[in-house]
Amino acid sequence: MTGERTNVAVLGTGGIGKRTLRVMEHKDELTPVAVCDSGGVAVDFDGVDTTDLVAADGGAVAAEGGSEVAALPDGRTTDDSVGDVIDVHERIDGVLMALPNIPHSFIPETVERFVDAGYEGVLVDVLKRSRVIDRMEEMEEELKGAGVTFVCGAGATPGFLTGAAAVAAQSFVEIEEIEIWWGVGLKSGYEGNVGTVREDIAHLDGYDLETVSEMSDDEIREVIDEHDGVLEFHDMEHADDRLLERAGVCDAADVKVGGILDVTQDKKPTTTTVRVTGTTFEGETATNTFQLDDDTSMAANVNGPALGYLRAGVFYNDNGIYGLHGPAEMMPRF
Amino acid sequence: MTGERTNVAVLGTGGIGKRTLRVMEHKDELTPVAVCDSGGVAVDFDGVDTTDLVAADGGAVAAEGGSEVAALPDGRTTDDSVGDVIDVHERIDGVLMALPNIPHSFIPETVERFVDAGYEGVLVDVLKRSRVIDRMEEMEEELKGAGVTFVCGAGATPGFLTGAAAVAAQSFVEIEEIEIWWGVGLKSGYEGNVGTVREDIAHLDGYDLETVSEMSDDEIREVIDEHDGVLEFHDMEHADDRLLERAGVCDAADVKVGGILDVTQDKKPTTTTVRVTGTTFEGETATNTFQLDDDTSMAANVNGPALGYLRAGVFYNDNGIYGLHGPAEMMPRF
Repeated sequence: MTGERTNVAVLGTGGIGKRTLRVMEHKDELTPVAVCDSGGVAVDFDGVDTTDLVAADGGAVAAEGGSEVAALPDGRTTDDSVGDVIDVHERIDGVLMALPNIPHSFIPETVERFVDAGYEGVLVDVLKRSRVIDRMEEMEEELKGAGVTFVCGAGATPGFLTGAAAVAAQSFVEIEEIEIWWGVGLKSGYEGNVGTVREDIAHLDGYDLETVSEMSDDEIREVIDEHDGVLEFHDMEHADDRLLERAGVCDAADVKVGGILDVTQDKKPTTTTVRVTGTTFEGETATNTFQLDDDTSMAANVNGPALGYLRAGVFYNDNGIYGLHGPAEMMPRF
Repeated sequence: MTGERTNVAVLGTGGIGKRTLRVMEHKDELTPVAVCDSGGVAVDFDGVDTTDLVAADGGAVAAEGGSEVAALPDGRTTDDSVGDVIDVHERIDGVLMALPNIPHSFIPETVERFVDAGYEGVLVDVLKRSRVIDRMEEMEEELKGAGVTFVCGAGATPGFLTGAAAVAAQSFVEIEEIEIWWGVGLKSGYEGNVGTVREDIAHLDGYDLETVSEMSDDEIREVIDEHDGVLEFHDMEHADDRLLERAGVCDAADVKVGGILDVTQDKKPTTTTVRVTGTTFEGETATNTFQLDDDTSMAANVNGPALGYLRAGVFYNDNGIYGLHGPAEMMPRF
């Protein structure tokens, strides 16, 4: 696809959306033609001028209820910003849905709206929860019929690390266990990632997505303080399991996801590591390892892969490959 | 492709060919329907019975000039075994070319023969040398016109480690250096891998592919003994560089391939490692790392990926994606 231009829409300008736009500045092939947040939309087929939005990343947060996108040169306020993007769907090649996973139905409903409008391009999300995959799989035939290529779970985990696991599995004829272990240091980045932290807290004992969705930002902060700013997670319901199973790499039950979130420092509290243990055709049991440098941020590891998968999705879509595709399926097959 | 059956031909039954057949025994979706060596061919659409051939792996070597394949239940001797496989090309989905890289023209000429015969499936090779890519690129339009999907350089390096490098690059917006460093312990496996060792020696100072192709097995052994059985390689002309450049990951000049071959022990003399150094969108320089367990053999790391890429190639071919594809291109895009 080198040299070709891909028109991208970014839905949502929270931490992930803003950083996606920043990464996109380094990708000549990708042009942001539509950007929206809950109250505003900006559309420009010469490329939305996102300078102010990107500059605000990590800085001041927009006034409550205000729209940062509406304040852009091409921006305006709107009651239905996703609808306004859908209105121009014919000129969009790929849509990155950097939307909250709360409630669960938000992303599937957004997909449904694009399909109903006759969109025939690529949709990418950075969803996390295993159970959302079921909902997406129910839409598989509808997506195929519509000519939509949907890449689901294309962030860091699931996404980057799921794909790395599928590659690391290639030494083996049978997989025993895949362990995904992440570290995130989020001191200065905390304010820009409250949504992600909220979703993580739902994995702690005694919490779920319903309870955290009703908590105020102060209540979220209280939970963090109770843990002295360091939260450790085990057996997270991250969709890596379902996505690796879909790709035929292993059973979902053989995938373990956990990690440590530290909001007291920017340094990662632990090194993000994927360990794939399996048996070779000679009968040897061994463990291949993929490690991200501590100096790669969560943002870098979400947004680079999300755009990488988006471009792979555009290649699929251009060649008539539609339907649902997880990151581990867009790889050499196991 | 789960549940579907892929008919595979394996050209060549040296170390790589035999191990491919062994790995294939673990893959229900893949059926070896044609197998050949230089003097014999076996064809059976219910699956060639390769038991005797696979049992011979690592054991006795066939009598000089003799064909192991001709001795199989479905086997027979032939003067043109590749031609005999081409005769049944209409019933073959994928061809794994486990053929010598010496001379350079052997694999491109074999590809040409399949194309000329009207083959419309997948061809996979495990070639190593950068310069062969040029020759293949010249055939790109011909491959596309013929409906052939050619996956080139799909072994360990290039192949497995090239793909891993392309994945590891996803944290970054710019790549500084990709270092591929391999270790191979080849004491008991030496006899079954003389061809590979011969090709490696061509990378040493004072040797090239032409000189090594004229050396006897005893002369190869002498070179090894001169190095006390441990050969260290730097700046190898492995096609990882060209294949990563094709995929837009980095310039070929930024890729370094080297490693250590130890024929005095089966234990790896060094851990096979891919290091990808780049800059994140925030401007941080960092290095992501992919490591293969020392207990995964060279054979496991060549043949698993070769079949994984073959299956990805079949997916491409089924969907009308033809032409030349390197391993780093069959990944999330950089």
